[in-house]
Amino acid sequence: MIIDCHGHYTTAPAALGEFRAAQLARLDDPGRPEPSPAPVSDEQIRESIENNQLLLARERGTDLTIFSPRASAMGHHITDTGTAVAWARVSNDLVHRVTRLFPANFAGAAQLPQVAGAPLDDCVVELERCVTELGFVGCNLNPDPSGGYWTSPPLTDEYWFPLYEKLTELDVPAMIHVSASCNPAAHTLGAHYLNADTTVFMQLISGDLFGRFPDLRFVIPHGGGAVPYHWGRYHGLVTREKRPPLDGHVLRNVFFDTCVYHQPGIDLLTSVIPAANILFASEMLGAVRGDNPETGASWDDTKRYVDKAGLADDDLRAIYSGNARRVYPRLAALGESA
Amino acid sequence: MIIDCHGHYTTAPAALGEFRAAQLARLDDPGRPEPSPAPVSDEQIRESIENNQLLLARERGTDLTIFSPRASAMGHHITDTGTAVAWARVSNDLVHRVTRLFPANFAGAAQLPQVAGAPLDDCVVELERCVTELGFVGCNLNPDPSGGYWTSPPLTDEYWFPLYEKLTELDVPAMIHVSASCNPAAHTLGAHYLNADTTVFMQLISGDLFGRFPDLRFVIPHGGGAVPYHWGRYHGLVTREKRPPLDGHVLRNVFFDTCVYHQPGIDLLTSVIPAANILFASEMLGAVRGDNPETGASWDDTKRYVDKAGLADDDLRAIYSGNARRVYPRLAALGESA
Repeated sequence: MIIDCHGHYTTAPAALGEFRAAQLARLDDPGRPEPSPAPVSDEQIRESIENNQLLLARERGTDLTIFSPRASAMGHHITDTGTAVAWARVSNDLVHRVTRLFPANFAGAAQLPQVAGAPLDDCVVELERCVTELGFVGCNLNPDPSGGYWTSPPLTDEYWFPLYEKLTELDVPAMIHVSASCNPAAHTLGAHYLNADTTVFMQLISGDLFGRFPDLRFVIPHGGGAVPYHWGRYHGLVTREKRPPLDGHVLRNVFFDTCVYHQPGIDLLTSVIPAANILFASEMLGAVRGDNPETGASWDDTKRYVDKAGLADDDLRAIYSGNARRVYPRLAALGESA
Repeated sequence: MIIDCHGHYTTAPAALGEFRAAQLARLDDPGRPEPSPAPVSDEQIRESIENNQLLLARERGTDLTIFSPRASAMGHHITDTGTAVAWARVSNDLVHRVTRLFPANFAGAAQLPQVAGAPLDDCVVELERCVTELGFVGCNLNPDPSGGYWTSPPLTDEYWFPLYEKLTELDVPAMIHVSASCNPAAHTLGAHYLNADTTVFMQLISGDLFGRFPDLRFVIPHGGGAVPYHWGRYHGLVTREKRPPLDGHVLRNVFFDTCVYHQPGIDLLTSVIPAANILFASEMLGAVRGDNPETGASWDDTKRYVDKAGLADDDLRAIYSGNARRVYPRLAALGESA
């Protein structure tokens, strides 16, 4: 059993994108009617999954993907709360249909209707709906809803606490995941995503969030951004800033995924981060597609790298499924299949 | 001969900080007189260096450090151009005195009087002064003078071209180095520095800057931020975005330093980045001080890691001095000692 904790519905039927376009058009011209998504058939959803994520999962030998809407399209920089709520609902409902059509292969993770600078009430409501009504097992949390200008307080600030209360009440984790960059200085996939991972890890080191929320769990994607590569730097900074050691502090609540697309990167990740803090993931279909010409294998076939990282069997089992079951306990409620 | 391409005068005599404080006080109260730095004796400078950077360099066996003012104190977010010009001059003049007192051990790299949103004319003037009058061999270039809000255009934008013209005319490289973060979301040493390195590398991939400035050279510090750890991701993004391969494009003009403070990080850096693109550096005295309790060695004693990275002798020589001589050709003009 191999659980991929980080997949996105980047192949959703065109009706989803058309709905979003109609939403944005209405923001420009409020005289337009409020849009509704065009019907999407089960057949359209099946095709969009079976020819893409599921095809690759079967080829590569992974079983269950924790699946969320396309991260780059979350669009939290758009400041109309009604638009954000409707967009999250429609996006999550479509993911829910994927999980119903392929219950053995997909579990849902919610897009939250965040709006830069706005309270998180709508996010709490949508999270609860997704978990209690749709059977989702987690969500994505955007630490920079401004889209590259970093106008929100750090994740240790009480601004975020209402969401943390709901996350812990529901016993679901959040994956830290920004949306597209609106900032011409920061490329979405090659800078903003990785920077957010790095930034949040340092926020968590600097604060005492897990003293207040001891059961809160965050998954930092993309292999933790720059963090494992600079593990010595973080140890040194912890000493310099008189913070608790990483092992007894953030590593109780923070986990890294394996979305690192070459063997030396996975070797580094698995050599410096305890196996108990690593969750297998591929980001399929995500930032990077295509094949490494030197190996002929897909860049994002992360299972190849993890298999070759020289891990002990116990560690491999933990990374492939044990840790995910622990971090996402609601997977168990999905029944035999999960 | 071992050249450390990244050192900062973080131990400058107190008069420098007092001058800065007086500058900032005058911005709050323009009725105050324009400050002048208090005299600093040669003896004060000798002490500040011999008991710190030079002591460690001798212990660790490095010879020449390319030395610039404290990066976190550059303060480019302060929008008064006169203040920026005076601060850069005073800071650079003090580094110049270090290079005169210890010509065998230090070569200068300039702080530029950047101001977020302002033209670069003052930077061009100060760069020329530092190189032609003070014998400096490079400079630090801040891609985000706003201090964590990323309000400047990418480094591929023509906004930056006047500086690039002067850099190529003088045949000196720029190290990409931000100053302190003013953004509570982004910790200076644990996020902002690394994010800037990552961000700029992706800017350079996305643009065609080196077609326009084929002799322009950038050193990306802190081991390239997240870049080498995600080397597969960058290869994949280059393919996805139809950019030229890394080898024939950015790697002709971009170099990484070795400020990565643990063995697995240096092993990764030296295994994925060509040796011709790596310059030895320690960041002394920089972000991280203190010792790794597991090894008893200082975190920032990067020579230990490079020595143990299993490099061929030719590669080791290139990383320790050959590449620095190529990237910083004005080192040769400093005479026998360099």
